[in-house]
Amino acid sequence: MDPHTLTVELGDRSYPIVIGRGLLGGHYDLASRLAGNDCLIVTNVTVGPLYLDSVRPCFGDRQVHSIALEDGESFKTVATVEKILDELVAQGAGRDTTVVALGGGVVGDIAGFAAACYMRGVDFIQVPTTLLAQVDSSVGGKTGVNHPGGKNLIGAFHQPRIVLIDTDTLTTLPEREFRAGLAEVIKYGAIVDAAFFDWLEASMPALRGRDAGALAHAIRRSCELKADVVAEDEREAGKRALLNFGHTFGHAIENSMGYGDWLHGEAVAAGMLMAAAMSGIEPGQYDRLRALIEAAGLPAAPPPVGADKLLPAMQLDKKAKGKRLRFVLLRALGDAYVTADYDEAALAQILEGAGA
Amino acid sequence: MDPHTLTVELGDRSYPIVIGRGLLGGHYDLASRLAGNDCLIVTNVTVGPLYLDSVRPCFGDRQVHSIALEDGESFKTVATVEKILDELVAQGAGRDTTVVALGGGVVGDIAGFAAACYMRGVDFIQVPTTLLAQVDSSVGGKTGVNHPGGKNLIGAFHQPRIVLIDTDTLTTLPEREFRAGLAEVIKYGAIVDAAFFDWLEASMPALRGRDAGALAHAIRRSCELKADVVAEDEREAGKRALLNFGHTFGHAIENSMGYGDWLHGEAVAAGMLMAAAMSGIEPGQYDRLRALIEAAGLPAAPPPVGADKLLPAMQLDKKAKGKRLRFVLLRALGDAYVTADYDEAALAQILEGAGA
Repeated sequence: MDPHTLTVELGDRSYPIVIGRGLLGGHYDLASRLAGNDCLIVTNVTVGPLYLDSVRPCFGDRQVHSIALEDGESFKTVATVEKILDELVAQGAGRDTTVVALGGGVVGDIAGFAAACYMRGVDFIQVPTTLLAQVDSSVGGKTGVNHPGGKNLIGAFHQPRIVLIDTDTLTTLPEREFRAGLAEVIKYGAIVDAAFFDWLEASMPALRGRDAGALAHAIRRSCELKADVVAEDEREAGKRALLNFGHTFGHAIENSMGYGDWLHGEAVAAGMLMAAAMSGIEPGQYDRLRALIEAAGLPAAPPPVGADKLLPAMQLDKKAKGKRLRFVLLRALGDAYVTADYDEAALAQILEGAGA
Repeated sequence: MDPHTLTVELGDRSYPIVIGRGLLGGHYDLASRLAGNDCLIVTNVTVGPLYLDSVRPCFGDRQVHSIALEDGESFKTVATVEKILDELVAQGAGRDTTVVALGGGVVGDIAGFAAACYMRGVDFIQVPTTLLAQVDSSVGGKTGVNHPGGKNLIGAFHQPRIVLIDTDTLTTLPEREFRAGLAEVIKYGAIVDAAFFDWLEASMPALRGRDAGALAHAIRRSCELKADVVAEDEREAGKRALLNFGHTFGHAIENSMGYGDWLHGEAVAAGMLMAAAMSGIEPGQYDRLRALIEAAGLPAAPPPVGADKLLPAMQLDKKAKGKRLRFVLLRALGDAYVTADYDEAALAQILEGAGA
């Protein structure tokens, strides 16, 4: 089956998302995507041993360097970015070098930010190997690292030149990470596509069984929806903020617990239900969201960290424009909006519930 | 005398350069330029005590924080950027905060890069207080820091919202730094404006005496020329590279000696003469450039670091696209071009001369 190609329309920074099976094993041509003669593949110690040998031939006879980071969100720091920059300098990499991210969202965020900073910006290719990265973080150009004071506080908008999604890489993805990726898939249905939400309800068993056809559709539709939003609002001045549904609560959960204890997708799953509760949507709709999250094997309730920790963590979150909190809420499944005009009492109640 | 305003034309990122006397003392309105309610002024321990009290009232009743960095190129590092980011996080600064650079080129480069990285980019205002920053580094959006392996290797393109040039700040500028700024002024004449070069020859005594009228014209014309080049080629895909005249040699001189021993402008002055020698321009024109550099009190010859050090330092320089060196050379005064097609023997001879 030929790969399917979407385009993120951003004028002279437009780029393709190529989705298919066996792209790495089939030595998909990435060499022709390089501006110069060399690239640096950034991966981690988990993904590197699995896929580095497959991806190298994609670059033909070009000069390929690689660096393997430690695995985990706790390494998503400025110090790790500096390691990559040191490596680029050590190679004498020029302005026409390309940084390639091979791995999940953490690898993509770090490698993309290093590419954004090296010589004020060099080319960047995304080869996401986790479900979360394939449906969300590899598309749209958000790069960055965490600060002890908050997630993704340090970063850049830096679009990739191509996103290459080989869905076969999901065969090696641990179960818990796979489920975490489903949270972002569910999110697209919840915020902008009620029909896709319906499809997910019907297809969750097939997805959980990693059925290739179901996965291909879920990834393709998620990427289409994300590409549309990013094309319309690259720098999150408006519509793109909808993609943060569940994330204000989710980031606060991650931040209060220290990164790494809950996976991002797990925190987002619980966060989506907190946001849905705050939205005051029809109970039947809330129950459907809850049931889908549970069917995906994701947590429907936050951990017992307590309102006293969650509220300050939310206030530092980037979505807090000025000092006023902003939330993505639902009118109904498939119909989200951004607002700073929310019910304080409802928020307090939801946060208290989190402390229970 | 009313301030003079130029515009850097970059579509929705266009911004004014306001040039005049007494702008800080007159409490020029910067408050209305802030997106939100607060700003962080980044300055250093030398400039802060001189101008922080003057600049604060420009922000009216907005919340103004400040941070004073150590003074000098050796502090232009990622570690210093992290200090600024820590300060922004500690204040709970949001996406609508503004970073204000008050100082010379080093302060502007560091503060601008911090603004580019915080929350993937917040607003940025330049208040340059040195001649070099007023005529060159504050305009055009190049921000960044040094890496032990090379100057400005880590950074971003991040345009300011406004550049506010109070020429009265030059009254406190040390003589050596003032002269170093003149190197960049001479550069504009040498690369694109023969008439301005003529004017500089006639006006150098007045400039050296810091005559207000002469300074105003030199700064205004330099900013006009830079704004035109930046508007045409923001990211240095073509014409903007002309602004690097003397800089490939100059950066190599700085890099071989360790930053801080020679000032940037001093290295550029010597570098311009090396580039002019390599250009094979008419001897009379070379002699005019040399005489003007000497009249500005700048070094006409590089320090005796030796070709064995200068050549590798040049090869890491950003201007080295791929592995081939590129130089900005002159056809004549006021007429520069970029080329990778240069006389190797001439380069070797010039570098040997540097070792003498």
